[in-house]
Amino acid sequence: MKFAIDLAKRATGQTSPNPVVGSVVVKNGEIVGFGAHLRAGEAHAEVNAIQMAGVDKANGSTVYVTLEPCSHFGKTPPCSDLLIQSQVSRVVIASTDPNPLVAGKGIEKLRKAGIEVDLGVCEEEALALNQVFFHHIKTGKPFVTLKTAASLDGKTATHTNESRWITGPDARLDVHQYRHQHDAILVGVGTVLADDPSLDTRLPNGGKNPIRIILDSHLRTPLNSKVLTDGKAPTWIVTGSKPDLEKVAALEEKEGIKVLTLPMEKVEVNALLSLLGEEGITSLFIEGGATVNGSFLKEKAIQQVITYIAPKLIGGKGAPTLVGGEGFATMDEVVELEIKEVTKMGPDLKIVSAPKLDERR
Amino acid sequence: MKFAIDLAKRATGQTSPNPVVGSVVVKNGEIVGFGAHLRAGEAHAEVNAIQMAGVDKANGSTVYVTLEPCSHFGKTPPCSDLLIQSQVSRVVIASTDPNPLVAGKGIEKLRKAGIEVDLGVCEEEALALNQVFFHHIKTGKPFVTLKTAASLDGKTATHTNESRWITGPDARLDVHQYRHQHDAILVGVGTVLADDPSLDTRLPNGGKNPIRIILDSHLRTPLNSKVLTDGKAPTWIVTGSKPDLEKVAALEEKEGIKVLTLPMEKVEVNALLSLLGEEGITSLFIEGGATVNGSFLKEKAIQQVITYIAPKLIGGKGAPTLVGGEGFATMDEVVELEIKEVTKMGPDLKIVSAPKLDERR
Repeated sequence: MKFAIDLAKRATGQTSPNPVVGSVVVKNGEIVGFGAHLRAGEAHAEVNAIQMAGVDKANGSTVYVTLEPCSHFGKTPPCSDLLIQSQVSRVVIASTDPNPLVAGKGIEKLRKAGIEVDLGVCEEEALALNQVFFHHIKTGKPFVTLKTAASLDGKTATHTNESRWITGPDARLDVHQYRHQHDAILVGVGTVLADDPSLDTRLPNGGKNPIRIILDSHLRTPLNSKVLTDGKAPTWIVTGSKPDLEKVAALEEKEGIKVLTLPMEKVEVNALLSLLGEEGITSLFIEGGATVNGSFLKEKAIQQVITYIAPKLIGGKGAPTLVGGEGFATMDEVVELEIKEVTKMGPDLKIVSAPKLDERR
Repeated sequence: MKFAIDLAKRATGQTSPNPVVGSVVVKNGEIVGFGAHLRAGEAHAEVNAIQMAGVDKANGSTVYVTLEPCSHFGKTPPCSDLLIQSQVSRVVIASTDPNPLVAGKGIEKLRKAGIEVDLGVCEEEALALNQVFFHHIKTGKPFVTLKTAASLDGKTATHTNESRWITGPDARLDVHQYRHQHDAILVGVGTVLADDPSLDTRLPNGGKNPIRIILDSHLRTPLNSKVLTDGKAPTWIVTGSKPDLEKVAALEEKEGIKVLTLPMEKVEVNALLSLLGEEGITSLFIEGGATVNGSFLKEKAIQQVITYIAPKLIGGKGAPTLVGGEGFATMDEVVELEIKEVTKMGPDLKIVSAPKLDERR
C-alpha cells in the first residue's frame, strides 16, 4: 500500500478535478502490475495496474488501491466492474470515496461478487493525499489553510506596527509556494488599507496567481489599490447584504473585479465558505490579520495551519498578535491541533499542523 | 577535540563551582591518554590525561583540552606547569578561560616555554559546556534562562485567564528538570497572587528545589502563600528602596525567608541581577508572567530562551501573551535569537534558543 500511495503522490497537481489514486497488483507475493490515475478523463489507477498485470496474472490476485474503486460510469467505465471481470480474489482499500456517487457502493459491489475486501490500511496517509478534494466534495466548502508568521513571543509586529521583516527569505519564499498551490487567497480589507499588497505568487519560475478575495463588509477597498488595478489575477470583494450600490458599480466597472454579496449585513465565515465553494474555490489560503484569523478560528473553519516562527523577541503588551477577535473563553473550547511537520527554514521554523481528526469530522 | 568535549560533558553538574573540562593526549596519531575534571578539589583534566599517558608518551605529544590550562595555584598546582614539565610539544585549546586569575596567562606561559599553542578549535561547543559558569565569572550576574509556554498563536491563557493546561505532561516534566538544574527560580508577585505556586521541583526521583525569588516592589506577597509557608526552599523577596518596614519584619520572621532591598523604588533588572550574582546565584530560571518577561527583555538580560509551544489555537485580542511590558518599537531593536534545538515533547514542541553570539558578548 505504501508503494500505491507513492504512485498516487507522483500525480499530485495534475488530476484535478479528480483525486490522485495509486494501485498495485500482487500475486503469489510478487508485484505483477501497478498504476496511477494520471489525468482526468484518462484511465483510473486500477485499470492501468490490471492492464500491466494482464488477464492471467490478474486472476486470483490481490489489488491494493489507495481509494475505493468507483462504481459508476463517468468518463470511464466503473473500476469495480473491471476488478470483478478480472476475477481478482482480494481488494485492499486505504480509504473510502466520499463522492456521493461512489461512497461505499464500489465496496458493496465487490463483496457481492465474492471478492474479499479489506478497508482502512494506511487510511490517514491516503486521506492526506486528497485532503483538499475530499473536503470540498464532502462539505461543498474550500479547504482552508491558515498561514501565520510571528516572533517567538507570538507578535506579528512591534507596538508601532513595524513588521518588515519578521521572517527570513526562505520562509517568505515558502509562502509563495502555497499561494501557487491554492485556488484563492483571502485577506481582510484592513490588510489592504494597511499594506496595499498585490497578493500574487513570486516564485523563481513565476507561478500561478491565486484569485484574491477581500473581506470588506463596508466596501472600503480603495479603487486605486493594487488588488483592483494590477490585473495580476481576478479579485473578488465579499461584502454584506446592504452594500453601497454606487461603490459596487465603481468596483465592477474594473476588469476582473467581482463583488459577491452575502445575505447578512456583516460577512459571516460559514456563509462565505459555502459561497466560495459554489464558485468553484476548492482551496483557500488565509493571510489575514488578527481579526480575520480570529473569525475563522471562532467558527473552527480551519483545516490546516502553517505557522512560521522567527527566533526574535519583540515584546510589548500593545504589539499585534496572530489571532485576535474574541477568542475562546475556556481551555475546553480551544481548537486542538496535531503537529504534522516541523522544518527549519533558514533561521526560522515552520510548523504544519491540523485540527485533530475527531474535530475535523 | 570532539572526544575531549564528550569527556567534559560526562562531568556536567558535578564540578561546581568549577567548570567542566576534558582533555586528550595524542602521540604519533594515537590516543595515549585522556581525562576529565570530575570534582572540585580533585585533579584537573590535563593532569588525569597526562598521568594516563605516562612520562615517556607525554614527551613530545599533542594535548587537546577544552579549556585553557590554569596558571595559578588553587587547590591543585597549575596545569600549565605540568604540561611544560612533561615536555609536550603542542597544546590545542578550545576556549580561553574567562577567570581573571587565568585569562590568557596559561597560554602565555606555555608559549614562553616553547610549546606550540593552537586556539579556538570547536570553541562554540566548548563555550556551551560551561556557559553558565563563564557568564557568571565574566559579568558577576547569573545566567538567565527565560521559560515560556504558549499556544501556537502565542497566548498563555484564554481571555478569561484559564491556562490549565496549555502544554502536556511531557513538557511540564521537562520544566521541572530545568528547575532542578538552576540555582534560583524567579516570578513576579502577580504570579504569586494569581496562582499561589510552590515553585518546587517535582521529578520522579525528587530533585533539588531552587531558591525562590519573588519580585515584589510593594511587598504584596501574602503571608500565607505557599512560597512563604511550605518550607520547600528558601524564598527571597526582592523589593525597592522604600519598603514598608512592618511588612519586612513580618516576612523575615518566617523561617528561610529573606527580604532583599534594591537602591531604587521599583525593582530594576540590572541592579537585581548584580545583587543576585553577589549572593552566589549563578543561574536564574524565569517563569514570570508577561510583565516580568517584558522587563528582562527590555534590558536584553536573557541568555537562553526555552519555549514550549502547544498545538492549540486560543485566539482573543484580550488573551494574555508571552511577553508584555512596553516592548521594542522597531524591528532593528528586537532581540535576535538563534534556534539551537527543536524537540517534540508529546503533542508539544520545545524550542531552545539563545541571543545571537554578537549580541551576547
